[in-house]
Amino acid sequence: MNLTEQMTQLAQRAKSAARDLNRLSTEEKNRCLSAMADAIEMQAELIQSENEKDLATGEKMGLSKAMLDRLELTDARIAGMAQGLREVAELNDPTGRVLDERERPNGLQLQKVTVPIGVILIIYESRPNVTADAASLCLKSGNAVILRGGKEAIHSNQVIAKIMVESAQAAVENFPDDAITVVPTTDREAVPILLSLTEYIDLCMPRGGEGLIRAVAEASRIPVIKHYKGVCHVYVDGDADAQMGVDIAVNSKCHRPGVCNAAETLLVDRAIAGDYLPQAGKAFAENDVELRVDAESKEILSQLNGGLRMEDATDEDWGEEYLDLVLSVGVVDGVNGAIEHINEHGSGHSDAIVTNSEDKARRFLAEVDTSAAYWNASTRFTDGGQFGMGAEIGISTDKIGARGPMGLDELTTYKWQIVGTGQIRE
Amino acid sequence: MNLTEQMTQLAQRAKSAARDLNRLSTEEKNRCLSAMADAIEMQAELIQSENEKDLATGEKMGLSKAMLDRLELTDARIAGMAQGLREVAELNDPTGRVLDERERPNGLQLQKVTVPIGVILIIYESRPNVTADAASLCLKSGNAVILRGGKEAIHSNQVIAKIMVESAQAAVENFPDDAITVVPTTDREAVPILLSLTEYIDLCMPRGGEGLIRAVAEASRIPVIKHYKGVCHVYVDGDADAQMGVDIAVNSKCHRPGVCNAAETLLVDRAIAGDYLPQAGKAFAENDVELRVDAESKEILSQLNGGLRMEDATDEDWGEEYLDLVLSVGVVDGVNGAIEHINEHGSGHSDAIVTNSEDKARRFLAEVDTSAAYWNASTRFTDGGQFGMGAEIGISTDKIGARGPMGLDELTTYKWQIVGTGQIRE
Repeated sequence: MNLTEQMTQLAQRAKSAARDLNRLSTEEKNRCLSAMADAIEMQAELIQSENEKDLATGEKMGLSKAMLDRLELTDARIAGMAQGLREVAELNDPTGRVLDERERPNGLQLQKVTVPIGVILIIYESRPNVTADAASLCLKSGNAVILRGGKEAIHSNQVIAKIMVESAQAAVENFPDDAITVVPTTDREAVPILLSLTEYIDLCMPRGGEGLIRAVAEASRIPVIKHYKGVCHVYVDGDADAQMGVDIAVNSKCHRPGVCNAAETLLVDRAIAGDYLPQAGKAFAENDVELRVDAESKEILSQLNGGLRMEDATDEDWGEEYLDLVLSVGVVDGVNGAIEHINEHGSGHSDAIVTNSEDKARRFLAEVDTSAAYWNASTRFTDGGQFGMGAEIGISTDKIGARGPMGLDELTTYKWQIVGTGQIRE
Repeated sequence: MNLTEQMTQLAQRAKSAARDLNRLSTEEKNRCLSAMADAIEMQAELIQSENEKDLATGEKMGLSKAMLDRLELTDARIAGMAQGLREVAELNDPTGRVLDERERPNGLQLQKVTVPIGVILIIYESRPNVTADAASLCLKSGNAVILRGGKEAIHSNQVIAKIMVESAQAAVENFPDDAITVVPTTDREAVPILLSLTEYIDLCMPRGGEGLIRAVAEASRIPVIKHYKGVCHVYVDGDADAQMGVDIAVNSKCHRPGVCNAAETLLVDRAIAGDYLPQAGKAFAENDVELRVDAESKEILSQLNGGLRMEDATDEDWGEEYLDLVLSVGVVDGVNGAIEHINEHGSGHSDAIVTNSEDKARRFLAEVDTSAAYWNASTRFTDGGQFGMGAEIGISTDKIGARGPMGLDELTTYKWQIVGTGQIRE
């Protein structure tokens, strides 16, 4: 059997498993998740012995220390996986929700009801605990999942999936074999083949660096939900409380600079720049943030005494995702200037305005083309947990399908169910 | 300027127009739609003189009489376009709806609000009245639209778009020039270029035959919402009222056989086949329907006297969209057999069960993987108008984005708007 046949068969079986999963009750799905959590704890040693094979390969491959660290399944990480599964069991079942309901004049009763999407392909790098997280969210939402992790993690990923499926089958007799499939080959050619199987795979969610995600999006014939990067903005308006503007800018940049909802650009209304920027500059110096400044902010900030590192911003800086303690700073012409800048340079992820003017805030919230628009709050809140979704499988900057943080609801689609009494069309 | 530059510029301008459109109030959009309707009526002669150029070209190209008929903008069709615009003005604005609302323990107030998608590319064939219909739905939902019709309709399409934009600008000063763009070239190479412009175009909706739609879906890097075909099923269960089963099967097949929600396959429960099929066969003979039968239904139907045309079904028949008075007929093993058959051979468009058993109906509604699942009603109701959407821009058999009939709501996406009082992440 060649690779194309192998991948096609794998996807066909996942499709068939998706139909079986769709028949499980909420209680059955939760029973599976609990059993999986127990099994992962009980078989921690087996998981770790498989993980050691991966760590040994990783060392031979010359992976960096940081990469090897992400790959390692410590006791704490295994406990975390089990805990995650139990938390997903506690969440509401996202299927079967009635989104719309109407009775037509001819008596037909229509319901728009959430249902599983079907088969979801997740392509990701390194961290094998993602395997359990992603599989549990797909299971709870009734979807079969095909997991393609990094080749350095294949033993870990396979043993986790195996334990999950076997324990679910012990808990619920008709739990399908192919509900959770780890692609059993590290052959790079498997990915483009999978991405062509539109008949069997309904959605692809790549998770990882921009390079991985672009490669997947470009090769895929399957719908892809993704975000490339987070070029998030904080705009401090002329009507802002300056101290709030400092706090939100510092938090958005510094709380965790390596993640996608961290701010990369600070925009300041010309009307407040002379007052605000020196305060903000001091705070950035204290937090060890390096600035990339436009001419106007440079002039203002140059008057500050010491400690502040800054360079002239280039055109590229306005679209840069630093993922580090670096921030570009520009002066703009009020809220309209901010909206224009963000819509030109942003990535549609998370963007905030700080202002006491409701009028300007409403304009900003409406007109900035972004998945999450904030008024007087840090961009760092764009997160499934912070949004109260209970769990997050990713963040989307796309507009078709899910947008923003994706939890269980975002792993469903809908169908129309129409109940009649023999109606025909006249 | 080469074609790539030309198309890129056109798409950039549409993106900018989308931002301007997003600022129009509902009242302003409605005023534009009314003005457009008036202008189309008042300039009927101009439209018809441009349409005559297309008809002349069409004749030279050797278009069929049916194609030329679809191309012609008669007085009635022009009145229909104007009427359609006025009807869209009456519909609710789909933007600004709050889909979800929550307050977090830290006091953050989250709203998930519908917003325009942005720029929508519509690729279609022949009928120039689609230009006005599609443009009006995009406008009402706040989207800029790029229209690529058939080359035989380019003069008609261009004059319609021109009249719409000019009349809207007379009614609402800041209506953007590029809200409605007809691609100004008939060069076939324009299409793949447009389909690569993911930075500016948010969604593509191809409308037309399966060949056109497959070509677009395969070439596109932009998300595509589509349906290839409608292989719709009627399943008559052992617990059905046989007469209702006949009425629904006949209506689903014969009411308008050339459309996508017409039934192509009748499935009959073995338990009722001996009683039901002779009744149904008689009705099909009266309605001039030709059957493609499996061995079991053949045996039963062969006992009928005269008038019924039938042939043995081949494997291909089960996936065939006849778009004609032809119906494949198979005997299945109860509701499970029906579900299995439909999930294997259907196109996920519209599928009906006829039964008096709520239990079996609920199973069918839940397990058939389709955009519209019917219990005791004709498949012919899958239509934006019949669903009470007021208008329809297409039907989707996809699962990401819209599924089933697409009206104004389906031309929106959402964003999260988060209002705080200075919250930062701890």
